[in-house]
Amino acid sequence: MRREASYVTATTTPLPTAVEPDVDLGPATGLTCRECGASFPLGARYACEECFGPLEVAYDYRGVTRASIEAGPRNIWRYRGLLPVPSTVTEVPNLEPGFTKLVRADNLAAALGMRRLWVKDDSGNPTHSFKDRVVGVALAAARELGFQVLACPSTGNLANAVAAAAARAGIRSVVMVPSDLEQQKIVTSAVYGGTLVAVEGTYDDVNRLASEIAGEEEDWAFVNVNVRPYYAEGSKTLGYEVAEQLGWRLPEQLVVPIASGSQLTKIDKGFRELVHLGLVDDAPYKVFGAQATGCSPVAQAWKAGHDVVRPVKPDTIAKSLAIGNPADGPYVLDVCRRTGGAVEDVTDAEVVEGIRLLARTEGIFAETAGGVTVATLRKLLASGQLDPAAETVVFNTGDGLKTLDAVSPVVGPTATIPASLEAFRKAVSA
Amino acid sequence: MRREASYVTATTTPLPTAVEPDVDLGPATGLTCRECGASFPLGARYACEECFGPLEVAYDYRGVTRASIEAGPRNIWRYRGLLPVPSTVTEVPNLEPGFTKLVRADNLAAALGMRRLWVKDDSGNPTHSFKDRVVGVALAAARELGFQVLACPSTGNLANAVAAAAARAGIRSVVMVPSDLEQQKIVTSAVYGGTLVAVEGTYDDVNRLASEIAGEEEDWAFVNVNVRPYYAEGSKTLGYEVAEQLGWRLPEQLVVPIASGSQLTKIDKGFRELVHLGLVDDAPYKVFGAQATGCSPVAQAWKAGHDVVRPVKPDTIAKSLAIGNPADGPYVLDVCRRTGGAVEDVTDAEVVEGIRLLARTEGIFAETAGGVTVATLRKLLASGQLDPAAETVVFNTGDGLKTLDAVSPVVGPTATIPASLEAFRKAVSA
Ligand SMILES: Cc1ncc(COP(=O)(O)O)c(C=O)c1O
Ligand SMILES: Cc1ncc(COP(=O)(O)O)c(C=O)c1O
Ligand SMILES: [Zn+2]
Ligand SMILES: [Zn+2]
Repeated sequence: MRREASYVTATTTPLPTAVEPDVDLGPATGLTCRECGASFPLGARYACEECFGPLEVAYDYRGVTRASIEAGPRNIWRYRGLLPVPSTVTEVPNLEPGFTKLVRADNLAAALGMRRLWVKDDSGNPTHSFKDRVVGVALAAARELGFQVLACPSTGNLANAVAAAAARAGIRSVVMVPSDLEQQKIVTSAVYGGTLVAVEGTYDDVNRLASEIAGEEEDWAFVNVNVRPYYAEGSKTLGYEVAEQLGWRLPEQLVVPIASGSQLTKIDKGFRELVHLGLVDDAPYKVFGAQATGCSPVAQAWKAGHDVVRPVKPDTIAKSLAIGNPADGPYVLDVCRRTGGAVEDVTDAEVVEGIRLLARTEGIFAETAGGVTVATLRKLLASGQLDPAAETVVFNTGDGLKTLDAVSPVVGPTATIPASLEAFRKAVSA
Repeated sequence: MRREASYVTATTTPLPTAVEPDVDLGPATGLTCRECGASFPLGARYACEECFGPLEVAYDYRGVTRASIEAGPRNIWRYRGLLPVPSTVTEVPNLEPGFTKLVRADNLAAALGMRRLWVKDDSGNPTHSFKDRVVGVALAAARELGFQVLACPSTGNLANAVAAAAARAGIRSVVMVPSDLEQQKIVTSAVYGGTLVAVEGTYDDVNRLASEIAGEEEDWAFVNVNVRPYYAEGSKTLGYEVAEQLGWRLPEQLVVPIASGSQLTKIDKGFRELVHLGLVDDAPYKVFGAQATGCSPVAQAWKAGHDVVRPVKPDTIAKSLAIGNPADGPYVLDVCRRTGGAVEDVTDAEVVEGIRLLARTEGIFAETAGGVTVATLRKLLASGQLDPAAETVVFNTGDGLKTLDAVSPVVGPTATIPASLEAFRKAVSA
């Protein structure tokens, strides 16, 4: 990277980690290893030099109040004082993701015998998934760190988000996908005009190749590889928004999808930060993780009482959640254990039923990831693990338009008729 | 309908039309014929009993200020004081459409040699098209008028919006589509669980059948047929939002898509109301209409200098705009003439180029209707009809995910490679 690490501690209060002198990443002060606690200056690091553990952003928060947040824009940048982004982030053209709807879901609650249920509907983001949040933060940090190209390996949602964000920001994107990806996902990534490379191989092959390239191209920010610590922080905004939209308080139960597990752990982190900063009252909440049975390494570990997560080979229609070797799996187990939640998995048939249930009751068409959370909510209620009387938020992180194949075999016309009133009368009761 | 017309004039000020006693449609006072000016009470009328002209909602606006609007919710209901909906509209569960982004489009402006350009991006609506606005208003009015079922003939966007809105509102929907509609549009309408009837015939056949049913089923509100006057008013919110988002002022030039022509005329109506109410300063603006050449009856009439619009048989990839006999065509000609605008049309190839240009420059993936407006913007600039220095708003009213077929033949991977660094190096220059 352009700016070399140089330790500086000339600040008024002691900082948890060192800072590179001319990097403005707002409240971020450094990177800390999640395993051994070692500290590193802000930069393009993502693995601990001591123990290879994952690095996480460390902060020194100043002057963030409910009022300062509420005075901000209606997107994730209202929380810029809590994110590793330059203080000028709102001045640069970007897709302005976030502040999606928290929908009061009384119909779905009634169908499930629940009392107070909300859907956090992240399909309202610019490219219709929560990935716009993490990419927004990654891009802002990557620019400040001197990167010139935004890149990623992806199977769909991330590719859309990176290609679109780079287009709007006027920088180059290089998106890599498996060559056997569905035509529709190729199209929705290619339309933004960046470089789209189809790689003959599995997603794991693509991922490995991306890491190799990241090691060579020092100007390229692979959002989910070499700038992953910044990228991951974007998911905290889901937690912040839920709390703010509830009127600055925490819900009692959450149902969150798991692929790498990053999102779940960051929502929890967001909640704890709000409590720590006095922005919400401390109150117990339970985090429940949701996976598709066909790719449920975290749920299997949970049920077996293990601390480690054994990799699996994914086989499920919930492709956006199909990470067989989830990097944050162990941390998910920690969060669910600490909060008194659980991790559960549902079959593909239940996923489809979950999509249909949400659409029928609330008019929200979720992608398979949303089908996974709704179906998991239902299953956790049935098994008594989730309290139907407690206030609950279920996350829909993507859009049904991107996974039409999941439901197309099972939904269709009620009737097909000739164009006559008589035929209509016969087919449809008034 | 349940409530029979009964003339009541016992109000403090003279009303332009009579009101049914127990109907609360907010500021709406009656219906007025656009052709002969005859007045009718609020109800399920849509054609003048005197001359068969289209009916339009008449209002008596009270106490609407910038402050009262700004204090409202961030959706179309902030303008409820200007819409034919009950004052309690926000208390009933609905999809809360509107207040979509007005995106400053400096990259697109630079590509087109323009100075100040904005994209009003209505793909951010709940079912990703502007139809959520008109359906929201139609549903609110229909409920108040005593209807029990929400229905429509449609070719796609409207079907999605009606089925989703009815699901969330917990009322029955009956959506009618041509049976040869693309599978994906069938799926996205059927998933919400209402009644979906596939009719063997063209959209015109479906439309005719819907009118017949509307004549028989007095409990059914066909949003674009028997409650069309209320439905159409929903498009005014596009005009209100643009003005408010610009800081309560009018842009100098607008480029708006035309199918029936309703949206264009209502954006103009919204602007004029804002001026009339003193909410924005009176300033000249030019309205430009955009059509696909394969269905351009209004553009043809404009170019020929006609006042009437001769119906055509549509043949274009811009299916959401493919109305060959546009009900509001003559009124569109009026608006464009009065404001000094024009109506222009673009080829399907130009539509595709328009979609790609917007995606590449701003990271916004538009459906074909948005491709039509962007391509028309470009064509009007080239011909000198549109001023590149004047502040301009171009409307994207739908989402590219719904019309993938339009671009899938022309966008794809930059390269397809084996999973090796060497192959990557060869295919992609750093
Ligand atoms: C729609 C959607 N939801 C949820 C997730 C899970 O994210 P994470 O990897 O942070 O667990 C993904 C990841 O790709 C996703 O695409
Ligand atoms: C996406 C989209 N844009 C614009 C329009 C044009 O609407 P109008 O019929 O009001 O001219 C339609 C109509 O169906 C549409 O679906
Ligand atoms: Zn370490
Ligand atoms: Zn008349």
